[in-house]
Amino acid sequence: MSSFKRNVYLKTVPIPQAVETVRGALDRESLVRTQRVASHEAAGRVTAEAVYARFSSPTFHSAAMDGFAVRADDTFAAREDAAVTLQVQTARTGGPLQAGHAVAVNTGHPLPEGADAVIMIENVVAALPDSTAPQSISIEAPAFPWQHVRRIGEDIVATELLFPQGHTLTAYDVGTLLSGGIWEVRVYERIRVRIIPTGDEVLDFTARPEPGPGQVIESNSQVLATLARGLGCEVERVAPVPDVPEVIRQAVTASLDDNVHLTVICAGSSAGSKDYTRATIAALGEVLVHGIAAMPGKPSLLGLCKGRLVAGAPGYPVSSVICFEELLAPLIAWLGRGEAPRRESVTVEMTRKVPSKLGVEEFLRLSVGRVGYKYMATPLGRGAGCITTLSRAQAVTRIPANAEGLEQGQSVPAELMVSRTALERTLVCVGSHDNTLDALADELMGLDTPCRLASSHVGSMGGIMAVKNGSCHMAGVHLFDPDSGDYNMPFIRKYLPETPAVLINLAIRHQGFIVPAGNPHNIRGIEDVARQGLRFINRQRGAGTRILFDWHLKQCGLQSDAIRGYGKEEYTHMAVAANVLTGSADCGLGIRAAAKALGLDFVPLARERYDLLIPEQFMEDPRVMAVMQLLGSPAFLARIEALGGYETTLTGQVMQAGTALGEHGR
Amino acid sequence: MSSFKRNVYLKTVPIPQAVETVRGALDRESLVRTQRVASHEAAGRVTAEAVYARFSSPTFHSAAMDGFAVRADDTFAAREDAAVTLQVQTARTGGPLQAGHAVAVNTGHPLPEGADAVIMIENVVAALPDSTAPQSISIEAPAFPWQHVRRIGEDIVATELLFPQGHTLTAYDVGTLLSGGIWEVRVYERIRVRIIPTGDEVLDFTARPEPGPGQVIESNSQVLATLARGLGCEVERVAPVPDVPEVIRQAVTASLDDNVHLTVICAGSSAGSKDYTRATIAALGEVLVHGIAAMPGKPSLLGLCKGRLVAGAPGYPVSSVICFEELLAPLIAWLGRGEAPRRESVTVEMTRKVPSKLGVEEFLRLSVGRVGYKYMATPLGRGAGCITTLSRAQAVTRIPANAEGLEQGQSVPAELMVSRTALERTLVCVGSHDNTLDALADELMGLDTPCRLASSHVGSMGGIMAVKNGSCHMAGVHLFDPDSGDYNMPFIRKYLPETPAVLINLAIRHQGFIVPAGNPHNIRGIEDVARQGLRFINRQRGAGTRILFDWHLKQCGLQSDAIRGYGKEEYTHMAVAANVLTGSADCGLGIRAAAKALGLDFVPLARERYDLLIPEQFMEDPRVMAVMQLLGSPAFLARIEALGGYETTLTGQVMQAGTALGEHGR
Repeated sequence: MSSFKRNVYLKTVPIPQAVETVRGALDRESLVRTQRVASHEAAGRVTAEAVYARFSSPTFHSAAMDGFAVRADDTFAAREDAAVTLQVQTARTGGPLQAGHAVAVNTGHPLPEGADAVIMIENVVAALPDSTAPQSISIEAPAFPWQHVRRIGEDIVATELLFPQGHTLTAYDVGTLLSGGIWEVRVYERIRVRIIPTGDEVLDFTARPEPGPGQVIESNSQVLATLARGLGCEVERVAPVPDVPEVIRQAVTASLDDNVHLTVICAGSSAGSKDYTRATIAALGEVLVHGIAAMPGKPSLLGLCKGRLVAGAPGYPVSSVICFEELLAPLIAWLGRGEAPRRESVTVEMTRKVPSKLGVEEFLRLSVGRVGYKYMATPLGRGAGCITTLSRAQAVTRIPANAEGLEQGQSVPAELMVSRTALERTLVCVGSHDNTLDALADELMGLDTPCRLASSHVGSMGGIMAVKNGSCHMAGVHLFDPDSGDYNMPFIRKYLPETPAVLINLAIRHQGFIVPAGNPHNIRGIEDVARQGLRFINRQRGAGTRILFDWHLKQCGLQSDAIRGYGKEEYTHMAVAANVLTGSADCGLGIRAAAKALGLDFVPLARERYDLLIPEQFMEDPRVMAVMQLLGSPAFLARIEALGGYETTLTGQVMQAGTALGEHGR
Repeated sequence: MSSFKRNVYLKTVPIPQAVETVRGALDRESLVRTQRVASHEAAGRVTAEAVYARFSSPTFHSAAMDGFAVRADDTFAAREDAAVTLQVQTARTGGPLQAGHAVAVNTGHPLPEGADAVIMIENVVAALPDSTAPQSISIEAPAFPWQHVRRIGEDIVATELLFPQGHTLTAYDVGTLLSGGIWEVRVYERIRVRIIPTGDEVLDFTARPEPGPGQVIESNSQVLATLARGLGCEVERVAPVPDVPEVIRQAVTASLDDNVHLTVICAGSSAGSKDYTRATIAALGEVLVHGIAAMPGKPSLLGLCKGRLVAGAPGYPVSSVICFEELLAPLIAWLGRGEAPRRESVTVEMTRKVPSKLGVEEFLRLSVGRVGYKYMATPLGRGAGCITTLSRAQAVTRIPANAEGLEQGQSVPAELMVSRTALERTLVCVGSHDNTLDALADELMGLDTPCRLASSHVGSMGGIMAVKNGSCHMAGVHLFDPDSGDYNMPFIRKYLPETPAVLINLAIRHQGFIVPAGNPHNIRGIEDVARQGLRFINRQRGAGTRILFDWHLKQCGLQSDAIRGYGKEEYTHMAVAANVLTGSADCGLGIRAAAKALGLDFVPLARERYDLLIPEQFMEDPRVMAVMQLLGSPAFLARIEALGGYETTLTGQVMQAGTALGEHGR
C-alpha cells in the first residue's frame, strides 16, 4: 500500500556506521570553540591545549616532619653510644644554618639555607637545658641527606607538562593546576543541546496535566535533557511543539540561530504520515542517517543543518533513550573531546531463552542479581514503550545482529546500570506478583543495609521453575491443589523433589470478581456470571488464579462452557482489570488491588495463601534474612493489612504440608 | 622528647572502624531532613518514601503501529487466497468500531471502543477505491487479539510501586515518574558541606598569588569541594583562616550555626604544636577518631559538634583526598541514603617490588596500561605531598595492613581511576625522562583517536629492564658506551639478547652544565669546574648523564677526585638544578629544560642520542603506530626543535649499531 502518503526510511545502518557517517560530515573544529575558565572551576572540562606548570611545588625545600633542620654532614658521627649535640639556632634570625647547629621546624616550614635534612622530633633524645625551648639537642643516629625534606619541585617542576590537550580534568587535577600556579585553563566549550518535544497528543509535564483519552504526558524530552546534563552539556528543553511542519521548522531554525550544537526533535522521526522530522531536517539541511539496525531505536534520524547536528529521536521512550545513548552521547563526547560514558561489563547467565531478529542488534534490559556465585539475568519487557524497563533494569545486554537470540543458561556480557555494590544487595524474586511484594520492596530499602527487591512476574509455576534452575533467591507462589485442598506444597513436592526449600507465608489474600464500578450486573458469585451469560475474561492456563476459578466452578457444579469467554486469556491481574474497564469483558477473576488501581469494584470470592518459596541454601543469605526480619515485624504486618484484601495470621510462618489457610480454613 | 607541647593521637584505627564509630555516634534521622522537589529535576536525589503511580501508562489502549484498528474476530477468516474486506470508518465519528469495519490509526492513537487489534499498514494489500483515503481495505491474514496494541497499563499500572524509599533516581526514573503522573517526590535534602582551609603559610588561590619563600598555594580545599560536589553535596569553601585557635573556632561555630551537616577543617589535624583542629573539635564537641591506620591519610580527625559532623583533613594533598574518599564520602553517602562511589576493580601485575609497613593500609597510586594481555602497574611516588600522583594515576591499589608489601610480578586488585576505554588507549613508556616526551604526550592526545602517554621515569637502564620484563610498550634510553662510542645498542645487545626490539631515535639532545643565572663562575667546560674547585652535584650510578660525564672527564684527562662533590648524587635533572638554585652546589650536568625550568643558565657540553626502544611485537600496536606517525610529522619535529636544546636530524629513524649521532658525529 505504498501509495499512502508516507516517508520511506533510508537504508537502516548499524550503530557504529551511523556515528561514523556523522563524524565524517561534521566539521567539529569550526563548530565547537574553546574558552578560558578558572582552573578551580574546571573539573569535568576538557583541555584544549597543553598545560605547563608556572610554579614548582614546593617552591622551596621544606620540612616533611615536625623536628629540627640540620646539615646532614654534622650528624654523620652520631651513634647510640656516641650522641652528637647540636646548638639550636632560632629560625627568626633568618640567616643560613651555621655548622653544628639545628633549627626547629614544623611540617611545611622552609629549610634554612645550608640545611639538607630534618630529624623527627621523636628522634631527638634530649634537649638542654629547657625542653620547651631547648638551647641544644642531642641525637643518637645520623641523618642522611634530604631525609624528611620535601625538595623543591618534588611534586611539580615549573615548566613541566601538567596535562596534554584533550584531557578531562578531575578534582585532583584542580589541585595540580592550582599548585602549579595555573589560574585559568583553555578548554572546549560545553556542548549546547536543545530538546524539542513534538506532537499534537502530548501534554507538557510542566503544566501537571490530567491526561484525557488519547493524550500522553510527554516525558522523553526531560529524560534526554537529564542524560545530556549528565554528560556536562548545557541543555534547554522547550515546550512541546504541535505536529505542524512549519512550527517544527521554526523551532529548529530558532535553535540553529541560537548557536546550539545539537538540536533533538523528540518523536516524529518514524515513517508515519504525521512524522515531520525528516522533512524538517531535509528542508534545513541534509539527512545523513534515517533508521538504525537496532531494536529499540530503529527510527532514529541524524542530519546536518547549517553545520550543526540535528537529530530526530523516536517517540517510544526506550527507543529515544537508545537513540541518545548509542548515537548522540558518542557524538557529544566526540564534539567535546571527552570520553563517551561506558558501563562496567559483567558476565550474566540468562534464566530464559530469548529469540531475536537476525540483522538487528537488540538492547535487552535485564533484571540481574547475584544468586549463589552467578549473576542471574531475567529479561524484562522488550517493548520500546516501557520506560519502566529502564528504571527496573540492573543491566542491559546487546543481542548481536548476527544472532538469532539467547539460550536459557547462556552466559552473555551485560552492561551494568547499577553499581556492583547495588547488585550484591539485590534480592531476586521470580514468580507470581502480589502487591505485598511492593510493600516488602519498600521496607527492604529502609533497612540499615538497604536491600533492593528485583521481582520478575512469571506466575507461580514460573517461580517454582526458577527455584529449580537456581535463578532466584525466592519465588512468590499461590498454587491451589484441588485434590488435597492444600496450597503450593503438592506442586513443590512434584516439581522440586531434590531441591531443599522452605515455604514461608507472606500473606493470605482475597481473590474475587473484578467488575465495573457500581457492579452493574450485581454479580455476587460464579452462578450470577453463568446465569446472565456475562462476558468473562480468563487467566492463562497454569495461573494460580485460573486453577482457583476452575475449582470454584466445579464446586458450583458448572462446566467451563457455561462461562462465556472462558477461552479468552490474559496473563496478569491488571490485564483482566483493563478488559473490564474498557468494556471488553463484564468481569474477571483477580485481586482487589487490580480493581482498585483502575477504579473498579471487587466482589470477594475466595481466600488463598501467597507464600515465598526459598531454597534452604539461601536462608542464611543476608538478603533473605532481611526479608525474614521484616516478616516478623508488627509494623510490616500492619502495613500489609492496611492494603486491604489481605490477612497476616500466617505471615512469616513456615508452611508444612496441610497448613492450608490455617485455623481459618478455606 | 614528649615534653614538647604537642597533641597526642588517639589510637589509630582501621578505616572501617572509623566510619562505623561515626555512624554509631551520629543521629542522621534528626540531622538530615526530607523535602519535596519537582520530579523532572529529581535525578540524582534519593527518595525518602515509597512512590506509587497516580496514572497508568498508557492510560488507554493505543496503536503500537501505523495502520488500521480492527476487531480481531472480523479477521479470522482472512487467508492469502481468501482476502477479507473491511469498510473504513472515519475516526472522527468517535463512536465504537462497528463490526466488519476498520479505523485508520497512527502509532500512539487510542483504539476506538470495540477494537482489539491493529493491522500494520504494510499488511494492507489493497485499498478501494482511492488509496489515499480508502473507503475499504483488504487483508490476507488474520489479526490475533491485541496485536500491535499497547494496552492500558502496559508500562505503568496506577497505584503500583514505582520506587521504594532510599532509591537514587536516574534520568530514566524521571521519565517513569512523569509518566506515572508524579509531579513531585519527597527526597532527602542534599548534604551541606563547608570546607575551611587553615594555615598561616597558605595563600588563597582565588587571589592568584605569587608564592614567596615559605608560602604555599592552598588548593586542598578546592579539591575536596570538587569531590563533594561530585557526590551531589551543596558545598561552600571559605577563605583560608590563620592558625589562631580562636579564629578557627569561630569559623567552625559559624558553620554549625549555618546548619551545615559536615564541616571540614583543612590542615592542622596532625599532632604538631600548631595543629589546632583537634582542640577546636574537642572544645565544641567530641573527638571520635584521631588517626587512621592508613597511609597516606593517617592524621585524619572525625568529631561530633552539636550533632553535626566535623572533620579535620590532613594538610598533605594526597592524605586529604584519602581522608575524604575513605572516611567522608562513605559518611556523606550514609547521611544522604545514597551509595558511596566505588571504582571498577581490575587485576594488575606489579612491575616492581614495593615494601610496605605492617599494620598500616597503604594506598599506592599506580600508572597502569595494558601491555600485551596484562594490565601492568608501576607505582607512582608514594609521598603524601604529591597531588600529581593522583592526577597521573590510572589506578590505586590498597596494600593491606597485614602485608609487608607487594612483590614484583605479583597480581593485585586495583581500583580504576580512569575508564577501561582510557586504559586501552594508554601507552606505557618507562625509562629516562625527557621533555620531548611531554610534547609527544600532548600530540598523542590531539589525534583522532587520542592516546594517553603514561611515562614512568626510572632511568635508561630501568627502561631496558622494563622492556625485558614486558612491562612497557617502549622505553626512553640515552646510554653512551665509551668503548664503542655508540649509543644504547651495546646495552641492548648485552641486556636484551633474546628480546627482538627496535630502536627509534626521538631526538638528539644537548647536555650541559646547569649553573646559576648569569654563570657567575664563568664555567665553559669541565676544566673550569676542576680548576676553580667548584662544588659539583652528580647523578646516580648508572644514569646516562653520569656515564656521559665520566667519559668527558676522561677525555679531559681528569680523575673523579679532581671534582669536588663527585660523590654527591641526585636522581633527576631537576634535582640537580634544584641544588644549583639553592646554592647547595655551583653546577651539575643536565639538560637545558631543567635549567630553564628554574631560571638557571645552561652551558652546553655534549650532544647525545635519546632513543625509544620498542619491542618488535608492539610495532603494530595502534598506540605505538600513533607515535611512529607523529615522529614522521614535520609539525612535531618543529615543535621539538622549538623546545631548544634538541636536534631532529635522526628523529623517527631506526637506529642500527654504530649509527651514533649520524652525520654530525659526536
